Amino acid sequence: MKKILVIGAGRSATTLIQYLLDQSEREDWQVTIADFQEALAVEKAGDHPRSRAIQFDVNDVEKRRREIEAADLVISLLPPHMHLIPGRDCLELNTHLVTASYVSDEMAAIDAEVKEKGLIFLNETGADPGIDHMSAVDMIERVKAKGGEIKAFRSYCGAIVAPESKNQWGYKFTWAPRNIILAGQGIARYIKHGLVKYLPYHHLFRRTETIHVPGHGSFESYANRNSLAYAPLYGLDDVDTLYRATLRHGGYCAMWQAFVEIGMTAAHYTMDFKDRISYRDYTFSFINQEPGLNDRESLAKFLKEPVDSPVVEKLVALDLLSTEKIYPKDGASPADILQHVLMEKWVFEEDDKDMVVMQHQLDYELEGEMIRMTASMVDIGRDHDHTAISRTVGLPLGMCVRRIMRGEVTRTGVLIPNFVEICRPVLEELEEYGIHFKEEEAAL
Amino acid sequence: MKKILVIGAGRSATTLIQYLLDQSEREDWQVTIADFQEALAVEKAGDHPRSRAIQFDVNDVEKRRREIEAADLVISLLPPHMHLIPGRDCLELNTHLVTASYVSDEMAAIDAEVKEKGLIFLNETGADPGIDHMSAVDMIERVKAKGGEIKAFRSYCGAIVAPESKNQWGYKFTWAPRNIILAGQGIARYIKHGLVKYLPYHHLFRRTETIHVPGHGSFESYANRNSLAYAPLYGLDDVDTLYRATLRHGGYCAMWQAFVEIGMTAAHYTMDFKDRISYRDYTFSFINQEPGLNDRESLAKFLKEPVDSPVVEKLVALDLLSTEKIYPKDGASPADILQHVLMEKWVFEEDDKDMVVMQHQLDYELEGEMIRMTASMVDIGRDHDHTAISRTVGLPLGMCVRRIMRGEVTRTGVLIPNFVEICRPVLEELEEYGIHFKEEEAAL
Repeated sequence: MKKILVIGAGRSATTLIQYLLDQSEREDWQVTIADFQEALAVEKAGDHPRSRAIQFDVNDVEKRRREIEAADLVISLLPPHMHLIPGRDCLELNTHLVTASYVSDEMAAIDAEVKEKGLIFLNETGADPGIDHMSAVDMIERVKAKGGEIKAFRSYCGAIVAPESKNQWGYKFTWAPRNIILAGQGIARYIKHGLVKYLPYHHLFRRTETIHVPGHGSFESYANRNSLAYAPLYGLDDVDTLYRATLRHGGYCAMWQAFVEIGMTAAHYTMDFKDRISYRDYTFSFINQEPGLNDRESLAKFLKEPVDSPVVEKLVALDLLSTEKIYPKDGASPADILQHVLMEKWVFEEDDKDMVVMQHQLDYELEGEMIRMTASMVDIGRDHDHTAISRTVGLPLGMCVRRIMRGEVTRTGVLIPNFVEICRPVLEELEEYGIHFKEEEAAL
Repeated sequence: MKKILVIGAGRSATTLIQYLLDQSEREDWQVTIADFQEALAVEKAGDHPRSRAIQFDVNDVEKRRREIEAADLVISLLPPHMHLIPGRDCLELNTHLVTASYVSDEMAAIDAEVKEKGLIFLNETGADPGIDHMSAVDMIERVKAKGGEIKAFRSYCGAIVAPESKNQWGYKFTWAPRNIILAGQGIARYIKHGLVKYLPYHHLFRRTETIHVPGHGSFESYANRNSLAYAPLYGLDDVDTLYRATLRHGGYCAMWQAFVEIGMTAAHYTMDFKDRISYRDYTFSFINQEPGLNDRESLAKFLKEPVDSPVVEKLVALDLLSTEKIYPKDGASPADILQHVLMEKWVFEEDDKDMVVMQHQLDYELEGEMIRMTASMVDIGRDHDHTAISRTVGLPLGMCVRRIMRGEVTRTGVLIPNFVEICRPVLEELEEYGIHFKEEEAAL
């Protein structure tokens, strides 16, 4: 019997753990569920004969090393900066490691050591990063195999609220709110017609694109941080256009651009208010009260919008002009207050559904013709425990684990799933769970 | 005979050293000019009987301490982060210290020790900070003395090229170019009608004000970093409006807003160009080539300006659309390249003149009437060695030193010149050198 140790049993682990237990008989696995809160581990383990629940403190060195030594593979669902705590033990004690997180510099630095030990430390095995790599590389390799020369690659992904649960702002927090508030700060880079393009934050939510997903309508997109980094990962060093973007429901980007314009997303300074500040005064900390205009008219004027425009309406509906709503704490950045305001309104309720949408567009030349291959995937959450985000993170992660446990992955070192040996079987298995890409091709 | 040690003899020290030597007979001083480049010290010392030139390495502990011990007062013209190197010796060896720099946190932290020793560490004694404090506090104290209740204080200052030497961009580098490129990044804060206002960088050069200076026409202004910090310094804790701003020639702010909009002032990332990049490609790293439009038209469209607007003309005249001009280095931030481009064109030539402009506006209520007191100062450089900036930094610094040497400053500790004991005599002496404020009062 082979042994898997899952560190972390929070809500996002539900689908993963269920997948692992479902496979455990056939694959002859024992699955240990470890969490600081023992009750959580016990709940997730259920009464499955192949499961084992333990209380687990990542700082308890002795117990940690004992459990890792006993395991064949560790799945770390810890916060990204903590993966190397079990990671270094795995290296020493000859245990494979799988995470859903981006490869950190620290993780990349131990690649040679991991290789030398013949181990696999596979990262970026969730939705994005994860399914995006697998589906992109699968497409790219098929096009290359038939002799196509790839000119452009564009990739879009978003984790959003499902249409049936949409509110007037087109967004609910199905995922870490802080990441949404700070999204895009820094610089976005991509390649367009052979020239590297830089998109400053104050233009990010303005230079948007509309994407059509067959059967699901249109979505808006804004550019992701650093598309350039994907050229070497996907074998796309000579493309003319390389662009990655985040998908949102229509109207979101214009609203978010308003927050950016006003200055509400800034996290780099603390505001100086002595008394508790009202939402209205928060807004007017940034914009001017125009003589002869009421608050709403002043806001509309600042945004260069009609007073009844959708953007103005959305901001007013957030109570941002309310003199009665008060931010309850002292010493906050503009971003802290915006997060507080949004978290009151953008609640992902118990009966709400979420949605993960992904689309790749690959333009290639074959026998003198330019062709666009489009692959789209949409997953709607089943219920609050089996959200789309939990499914699209947990299932591919579990499937990657299965490939490694079966000895089907022959590469070693610090890896991401950007090679066909792992992409193809996982994509095939995802189809069985209803997560599949719909492909179309058309001449350009 | 009392002894003054001047550390640093660069170009900006010329006026200061000349002032000190001019006073040295009457005041019975010996002035030691210390510089790492001995030749520079010798040149500045000239053959004045009261001067002494020495080679000085700030890291040569023994010599440094010997010289500081021998002196009654040290003037540090070192870079701001280095003042505490002679500063700690001054503290130990009972020597006063004067600088033209902002009080750093490190400097503020030794206030109690300096006081305990009965020493004076006087900072912010130049133009801005310096003359601005002295003239503002002088006005404020006079208004308070006659029973006026101060409602608003606005202060404007700029170091710019004199009108007779102006180029089409209205700016030449008379001062550290890097500071100009990065000016305003972060957040500007001020108080307007009782509410603290925050002005994000992407609006800073757009929310401008025009200021009239009697006899010198109009100037543009943009908000300075943190006006709030001046309330306690100037005894203005209850004002409704507190605003500090930087002055520029007309047209500058709209041009600089274009650099900000495009993204050319960003210093927080390195651009990824493999080959040397042309100025045109630098510009088009940020903006889109619009189908059917030429480069100039694409730039104008991005800026939402007519193709022949002054802003577009200014950018084109900087060669920002040139395919022949090449940035000569690898690995640069947008700000590095902008600085390179501007330094080619905005040269402060040998026969150019510079200018320092300052204006304070004080609104106060007296016997039921609202009155505005306006004080304006303009200084034009004499020649390349006696620039306005060198005069308005060197003269008040020298005059502050003179007050301390005469024992006329009774306060001790880490100080700035925000008290009448030093403000009034220095302002009076500045008048003898042609640096004077023209005051006007008018009912509001």
